[in-house]
Amino acid sequence: MRAVIVETPGDVDALTIGEVETPRPGPGEVLVRTVASGVNRADVLQRQGHYPPPKGVTDIIGLEASGVVEEVGAAVTRWKKGDEVVALLAGGGYAEFFIAPEGQLVPPPPGVDLVSAAGVLEVAATVVSNLEVGRLSAGEVFLVHGGAGGIGTFATQYARALGATAVSTAGSLDKVRHSLEHGASFSFDYHGDWVAELKEATGGADVILDIIGAKYLELNVKALKPGGRLVIIGMQGGVKGTLNIGLLLSKQAMVTATSLRFKPLGAKAAICRRVEQEVWPMLGDGRIRLSPETRIPFDDVRRAHEQLVGGDNVGKIVLVH
Amino acid sequence: MRAVIVETPGDVDALTIGEVETPRPGPGEVLVRTVASGVNRADVLQRQGHYPPPKGVTDIIGLEASGVVEEVGAAVTRWKKGDEVVALLAGGGYAEFFIAPEGQLVPPPPGVDLVSAAGVLEVAATVVSNLEVGRLSAGEVFLVHGGAGGIGTFATQYARALGATAVSTAGSLDKVRHSLEHGASFSFDYHGDWVAELKEATGGADVILDIIGAKYLELNVKALKPGGRLVIIGMQGGVKGTLNIGLLLSKQAMVTATSLRFKPLGAKAAICRRVEQEVWPMLGDGRIRLSPETRIPFDDVRRAHEQLVGGDNVGKIVLVH
Ligand SMILES: NC(=O)c1ccc[n+]([C@@H]2O[C@H](COP(=O)([O-])OP(=O)(O)OC[C@H]3O[C@@H](n4cnc5c(N)ncnc54)[C@H](OP(=O)(O)O)[C@@H]3O)[C@@H](O)[C@H]2O)c1
Ligand SMILES: NC(=O)c1ccc[n+]([C@@H]2O[C@H](COP(=O)([O-])OP(=O)(O)OC[C@H]3O[C@@H](n4cnc5c(N)ncnc54)[C@H](OP(=O)(O)O)[C@@H]3O)[C@@H](O)[C@H]2O)c1
Repeated sequence: MRAVIVETPGDVDALTIGEVETPRPGPGEVLVRTVASGVNRADVLQRQGHYPPPKGVTDIIGLEASGVVEEVGAAVTRWKKGDEVVALLAGGGYAEFFIAPEGQLVPPPPGVDLVSAAGVLEVAATVVSNLEVGRLSAGEVFLVHGGAGGIGTFATQYARALGATAVSTAGSLDKVRHSLEHGASFSFDYHGDWVAELKEATGGADVILDIIGAKYLELNVKALKPGGRLVIIGMQGGVKGTLNIGLLLSKQAMVTATSLRFKPLGAKAAICRRVEQEVWPMLGDGRIRLSPETRIPFDDVRRAHEQLVGGDNVGKIVLVH
Repeated sequence: MRAVIVETPGDVDALTIGEVETPRPGPGEVLVRTVASGVNRADVLQRQGHYPPPKGVTDIIGLEASGVVEEVGAAVTRWKKGDEVVALLAGGGYAEFFIAPEGQLVPPPPGVDLVSAAGVLEVAATVVSNLEVGRLSAGEVFLVHGGAGGIGTFATQYARALGATAVSTAGSLDKVRHSLEHGASFSFDYHGDWVAELKEATGGADVILDIIGAKYLELNVKALKPGGRLVIIGMQGGVKGTLNIGLLLSKQAMVTATSLRFKPLGAKAAICRRVEQEVWPMLGDGRIRLSPETRIPFDDVRRAHEQLVGGDNVGKIVLVH
């Protein structure tokens, strides 16, 4: 089959398309013919050599994809040849075929075609699982950084659908506006004093979903309410930060950091089930709206990475096969 | 009544005994005639002006005491005049009488006299509530720093009684031995490379109860197993530390910091109930053994603080009235 190969990690030129052996589904696994592959920030890190796959996982890039079932392995009960599916993957999405454990496949959301569907599951699974880690509940205040980004646009709408007050930060007036149109009750320019503005507007945050890491660690702890929970899922602002333990203690607050990709299979299957049952209906009835994705042919994978890194893209990028 | 008064925060000379008005129990409160007052490290911090009481709490020092019920306020159902009780307090223990919410009183443990009982509840409530925060479960590895200290001696025995493998650090061979005799399966001298020794012995810790804070933050995160939980309750090694978010993320681990004193009344009552139901039987049947306490007359409160700060005391210090 055709697949994206990275011989030596590096810049976009490291991405080449070549022939590799088509994988065969083992017990509990499904082989899917790819229709579209979602492009994520983590793919760029993996291309650069900074984010190797978990043990036992293919080194082909790609954390999510959609397609049509080609062949099922032993003991697979839910799927059969010809079914349309969307997959959450630990790797392998940038290829003509991919293998997924059956629990990490879901049908496309109602009313969403297979190409658009390729860019939904990773974000949905990340947000749903991490707001569960943060125990966000109705009536609480939820802050996400980058309210106009992929994670942010989804998270504000989902938090609002849960009955929480969603708040975000964003980098420009346009992005502030985008966030306010997608579930946020307040959105603050992150070049200003967003901690003070947040405290003024809502008294602080019960749960923060953070994609910045080190650079925001002290600010995030300041922004928490008593009993607050900071859930870190990205380190765009560095890996080692200063933690004010005294402040954390006086607030009885919590800091945690999680990664979807490194969770065990059972946990991923449970998250996919929850996304299908809880989020797909929200996409169906418009409680969550997706920005239109950018479609780029599979053969132009380098251009897809350039566009993602360029940073002006709104909505997901998907590679169409 | 007679009470310890601190006019100006400072060294031990700041502690004087004087006359103050005897408090009256409000609704849901109980007035207790003190038999003995437990002495805690936090008392020293409060004397020095570093640890003011929560809002609305007396500024008389003292987080735990035992005594005999003198008078009950309206709506108190469990207690009557003459009952022997042990109290978890937010303040006020260093006095001839003290006031406690009825839920923060428990009977003394089976077979323990009121004087010894004055030094048990604070430690028990701290450990029980924080291992709950850390979700320690049977079969897991539990690490506590200062295995021969008040918190450490209790925590290793309690964790072992829960079915966990208890491990500690300690500052000398004698203290290592003390810890091994009180529930620890391994105890490491903290002047050495305890992270490496821990990993070698048990593969790391699922839960760490930390009293050091900043100085151990990076080491503690290194010592955690995947999915591990670091619960910080003391900052003997400083307030601001370096958090390696990348390492936390790769382990899907959690850091939290809590303080018993600042928890709401309802939470404290629930903890006291749990201590009475779960820990008192363990003291009764010897699963948890206390080091003999040091008894010092109430009038010698300065000596009690000197002895605590001196650091060579094993077991609790209690002030006898
Ligand atoms: N741990 C996991 O399981 C997991 C899963 C999925 C994603 N992630 C991580 O989550 C992050 C976001 O992913 P994404 O798909 O949403 O990427 P994205 O669409 O490219 O969004 C990145 C966001 O970062 C924001 N940002 C940049 N600098 C900022 C700052 N100083 N303060 C606040 N916000 C800032 C941007 O805001 P502006 O555009 O307004 O400047 C943008 O919204 C990535 O780091 C990704 O690796 C982690
Ligand atoms: N947050 C809360 O709710 C709460 C409640 C109660 C207590 N605490 C805190 O918990 C801490 C311990 O209280 P305690 O009553 O157990 O005091 P303690 O009996 O005086 O014990 C202090 C312990 O610290 C150990 N220690 C000192 N330096 C160390 C190092 N570098 N590495 C490892 N251990 C070290 C000592 O070990 P060696 O003697 O072997 O040197 C000793 O066992 C205090 O800071 C207290 O304020 C917090």
